[in-house]
Amino acid sequence: MMKLTILGSCSAYPTLNRFTTSQILQINGKSFLIDCGEGAQIQLRKNKIKFNSIEDILISHLHGDHFFGLPGLILTFNLLGREKPLNIYGPKGIKKIIVSLLKIGNTWTNYKLNFTELKNPKSEIIYDKNDISITTIPLYHGIYTNGFLFRKKTSVHKLMVDKAQSYGIDKTQFAGIKLGKDGIKTDGSIIKNIKLVEPLNPDLTYAYCGDTLFNEKIIEQTKGCDLLYHESTFLKKHENFAKKTFHSTAEQAALIAKKSNVKKLILGHFSTRYKDLDLFIKESKSIFPNVDLAIENKIFTI
Amino acid sequence: MMKLTILGSCSAYPTLNRFTTSQILQINGKSFLIDCGEGAQIQLRKNKIKFNSIEDILISHLHGDHFFGLPGLILTFNLLGREKPLNIYGPKGIKKIIVSLLKIGNTWTNYKLNFTELKNPKSEIIYDKNDISITTIPLYHGIYTNGFLFRKKTSVHKLMVDKAQSYGIDKTQFAGIKLGKDGIKTDGSIIKNIKLVEPLNPDLTYAYCGDTLFNEKIIEQTKGCDLLYHESTFLKKHENFAKKTFHSTAEQAALIAKKSNVKKLILGHFSTRYKDLDLFIKESKSIFPNVDLAIENKIFTI
Repeated sequence: MMKLTILGSCSAYPTLNRFTTSQILQINGKSFLIDCGEGAQIQLRKNKIKFNSIEDILISHLHGDHFFGLPGLILTFNLLGREKPLNIYGPKGIKKIIVSLLKIGNTWTNYKLNFTELKNPKSEIIYDKNDISITTIPLYHGIYTNGFLFRKKTSVHKLMVDKAQSYGIDKTQFAGIKLGKDGIKTDGSIIKNIKLVEPLNPDLTYAYCGDTLFNEKIIEQTKGCDLLYHESTFLKKHENFAKKTFHSTAEQAALIAKKSNVKKLILGHFSTRYKDLDLFIKESKSIFPNVDLAIENKIFTI
Repeated sequence: MMKLTILGSCSAYPTLNRFTTSQILQINGKSFLIDCGEGAQIQLRKNKIKFNSIEDILISHLHGDHFFGLPGLILTFNLLGREKPLNIYGPKGIKKIIVSLLKIGNTWTNYKLNFTELKNPKSEIIYDKNDISITTIPLYHGIYTNGFLFRKKTSVHKLMVDKAQSYGIDKTQFAGIKLGKDGIKTDGSIIKNIKLVEPLNPDLTYAYCGDTLFNEKIIEQTKGCDLLYHESTFLKKHENFAKKTFHSTAEQAALIAKKSNVKKLILGHFSTRYKDLDLFIKESKSIFPNVDLAIENKIFTI
């Protein structure tokens, strides 16, 4: 299962009850923080996300509304005694600016900060551990920007330890069972592999497409996704603004969802000019019906 | 009158209902922002402070909990169409780091940003316009840090326009009355100056002493103040922590207030370890009785 929590989805600046872009994707007890607008740490607390479950932070691009919450979060982790390393993935330049912000205050972290600076204009795998991978989705925002495709692979069989133990199967067989072998009980009888590993499901996928101009090239990566987040800063009537500011409309996001044949679409990064966000749903539905809004503290599961 | 609104007073990091250090001092319709922790812009909205009334921002030192809200606020002002210049006073280095944060996102401001970088280890006047002056208060925090003494001078007479008009005094006399002249009615009779200008009061003063070790040298600037904010991160039982981290206890803040003979003391920057903040009041009261806590959204008037 993947669990996505929206921490913020407002474009440009926070308001009284809206925060700038930030999301948490939880897979296997790990929390991936996607973008980190100002106040993300407050939203993490509100949504009871354990700080220590965050090992990886992915920053799509270096506009302030997508990363101005990061320096404060790094210092908070330190003040709370964090020991485990923190991995930060983001555009080239992110390391220098974050380190400068710490140095200017004579501050530092007692835990290790690992930066992976991205500059590849093409899609690349930036994370591949156990059954989780993350691939970049090149976006079109006038500044170097990536979306991220999260994949929870199920090609690795997951052993149900309790079950194996209940059959009295010895630990020495576990590695073989994970690779597809059957289990052998102490009396010699055989337990079929399928009874000892979790059933094989298709991969689970979540595609995060933050700030971007409408561009069908995105579909190469988003094809067939379970869940697609695609920004929709504007409504159709402001399509010219969208083009000028390298953003998309709800209709354009729906087109990407339709052409990608995804299961579900969520829209976000709404301009603060719109009071009635249902208009985004309305505009999208005519093209792609299974659509929802990314609103603060909302949860989506895959 | 001066009106002080506490936007945040929590040390180190924000929590669910507490923000890091930030205050607004309003004098004559102008709002001075003192320090700017993460989320200060949310607190400005909550307290209905007009963004355009802020012309000057003063940063005491470059620890993150005192200025990580500044880059976001600068961009928000820009997005809201600000035209008037913004003056930022803070330690040397503040200009480079803020400009770097904007540049890395290819962002800029359509209004002018004026930086006044401070490096003087001695007290100096950094603002002196009309009847308001601001003087630095050198503090002792292991990193270059200033407090700020705000003075609203009353040597300038303020004309009571309504009153002058009710006597039928012509506008052409107003400039003279402001300089101390009497008014002359159309029938030639004289209205004493004192009846036309606001009564002369002594200067109003507010001293902001953010993060600092206990140091009696501060008293040189805080002597006789109407209102003193002095940090008290710790209680007496953690006096050793205070010393080690260049902070003060409630008792030490009270001692500064007593020796300065101020009218009122407010305590703030409480460590998140304390749940019961009344203990700060208790500890202070035995030394200096007129004391209050700087809590989010609280207002103090002078």
